[in-house]
Amino acid sequence: MTNLHTEKQTGEKTTKTPEKQTGRTATIIGIGLIGGSLALDLKDSGFCSHITGVEANPEHAAEAKKLGLVDEILPLKDAVKKSELVIIAVPVDATIPVLKAVLDETENQIITDVGSTKEKIAKSVKGHPRRGRFVPSHPIWGTEFSGPSAAVRGGFSGNVTVICDKNECDPDSLAGIEAMYDAIGMKKIYMDSVSHDVHAAYVSHISHATSFSLALSVLEKEKEVDTIFQLAGAGFESTVRLAKSNPETWVPIFMENRENLLDVLEEQIERLLEMKECLRHNDTKRLKSLMKKANEIKKVLKK
Amino acid sequence: MTNLHTEKQTGEKTTKTPEKQTGRTATIIGIGLIGGSLALDLKDSGFCSHITGVEANPEHAAEAKKLGLVDEILPLKDAVKKSELVIIAVPVDATIPVLKAVLDETENQIITDVGSTKEKIAKSVKGHPRRGRFVPSHPIWGTEFSGPSAAVRGGFSGNVTVICDKNECDPDSLAGIEAMYDAIGMKKIYMDSVSHDVHAAYVSHISHATSFSLALSVLEKEKEVDTIFQLAGAGFESTVRLAKSNPETWVPIFMENRENLLDVLEEQIERLLEMKECLRHNDTKRLKSLMKKANEIKKVLKK
Repeated sequence: MTNLHTEKQTGEKTTKTPEKQTGRTATIIGIGLIGGSLALDLKDSGFCSHITGVEANPEHAAEAKKLGLVDEILPLKDAVKKSELVIIAVPVDATIPVLKAVLDETENQIITDVGSTKEKIAKSVKGHPRRGRFVPSHPIWGTEFSGPSAAVRGGFSGNVTVICDKNECDPDSLAGIEAMYDAIGMKKIYMDSVSHDVHAAYVSHISHATSFSLALSVLEKEKEVDTIFQLAGAGFESTVRLAKSNPETWVPIFMENRENLLDVLEEQIERLLEMKECLRHNDTKRLKSLMKKANEIKKVLKK
Repeated sequence: MTNLHTEKQTGEKTTKTPEKQTGRTATIIGIGLIGGSLALDLKDSGFCSHITGVEANPEHAAEAKKLGLVDEILPLKDAVKKSELVIIAVPVDATIPVLKAVLDETENQIITDVGSTKEKIAKSVKGHPRRGRFVPSHPIWGTEFSGPSAAVRGGFSGNVTVICDKNECDPDSLAGIEAMYDAIGMKKIYMDSVSHDVHAAYVSHISHATSFSLALSVLEKEKEVDTIFQLAGAGFESTVRLAKSNPETWVPIFMENRENLLDVLEEQIERLLEMKECLRHNDTKRLKSLMKKANEIKKVLKK
């Protein structure tokens, strides 16, 4: 992963896309961390030759232009009309109306979103005459930063993207989105949008909930902020890192996935209560067995 | 931080210690992650010229010798007798009996421990005729790995060490331990042992409790282990990293600091319940305000 400001685009890869001799024209709606980083990688990989940005926040629009993330900024309708590919990268609660607006303008465009929840988004366009143009996807990468200035090069590469409900997608649309993720180096996995949200609650959304509440606990109890700063080791930093995440992104994710997240939150509270009982009753044997069980997470972590 | 196996000791810094022309003789009791890493840095910095290991686990003893972490392995009494400096790096529940045994053998040795809890350890030797030789300390660095093979070079450098109850230490003993931490590049801060444990619960022990319970929740709910593996992003990995930590180290830390940890655990459970209420009642306004408040942790994190 390299920072936007430290490395120049070379453009030397523009002839490498096997599916098409010249890069595609694309619209990215929402030029923040994900939209902006995608814009960089799609240009770098040569998958796109021209990127139009659609951005509701005028400051972000100006910044995206200034940083060279997009070639131009246009209103949604004009942008969609001139593009072969449309990527929706707005917060998940804004995705549904934007997706409908895009589908209504679509002729033969290929459309995807990059949201962290999938069930409600997929359900919202069920039965739309252009439903097949849309390929719901979730590239699993991000940082705790946000906005166009958070965009970085090469973040997606080597990570996984989930493609949902592929049987409801037109074959050419599915192939186009698969080729896009191939171009930026992502590994593709497939599942239905309902399963996606269940798993995402376990392996992503609960991590954020835990990190937010850990930060709140520490800020509440530890009024000596300088002491936190001095004493905080790497362990603390890695556990609360996600608490820096943008509420504009994460409130909608939590709300769209609230049923699943509530399940996992309850489980997490139960586990903390269990740990509390061990401490309260000096039950070292049970505490050790809980920690040993938790150690099994080693098996599923990559490093 | 460089790995033990990738960089050779040069020994070229052996004349740099200002306090003493030749390095000290030291005993390290417990040659695991912390004891082993200290051994490497104390030799590399020239602060020590000879390190004797005391190790209850025969396999660890052989491994420490084989890896070159220590010059020899001796029984506690013999090791203490031939050393100027004694460092106790065993789990915190074993520290109290070991510390008493060391103090009983002490003539003019300088003694420290490196435990993550301080109150009970400091209290246990109150009134001992050799109390002044002991400087309670807590170098804040570690990884989730354990044993002699987890030892790395340069881990401590740039991090903070806490020195406790300095007014109860003999001036030469305090100066010796300060010089030791200076030699391995640590920043020193001072507090009483009771305050240390309160703060450590907030900024370290609760992070571990949270991470252990997050791992347990996910392992409990998510039976499709392959799916976790595929979907887990960097956020999940950083939040559960500490759940890989060794129960032999962490059960005693939790138990020694149980009163403080119980306080912070209760706070953490309250915060999760608050988040759950927001979800249950679709209270996006309150959820956003909680996340915004949590974002303030940015101010106290180094990066």
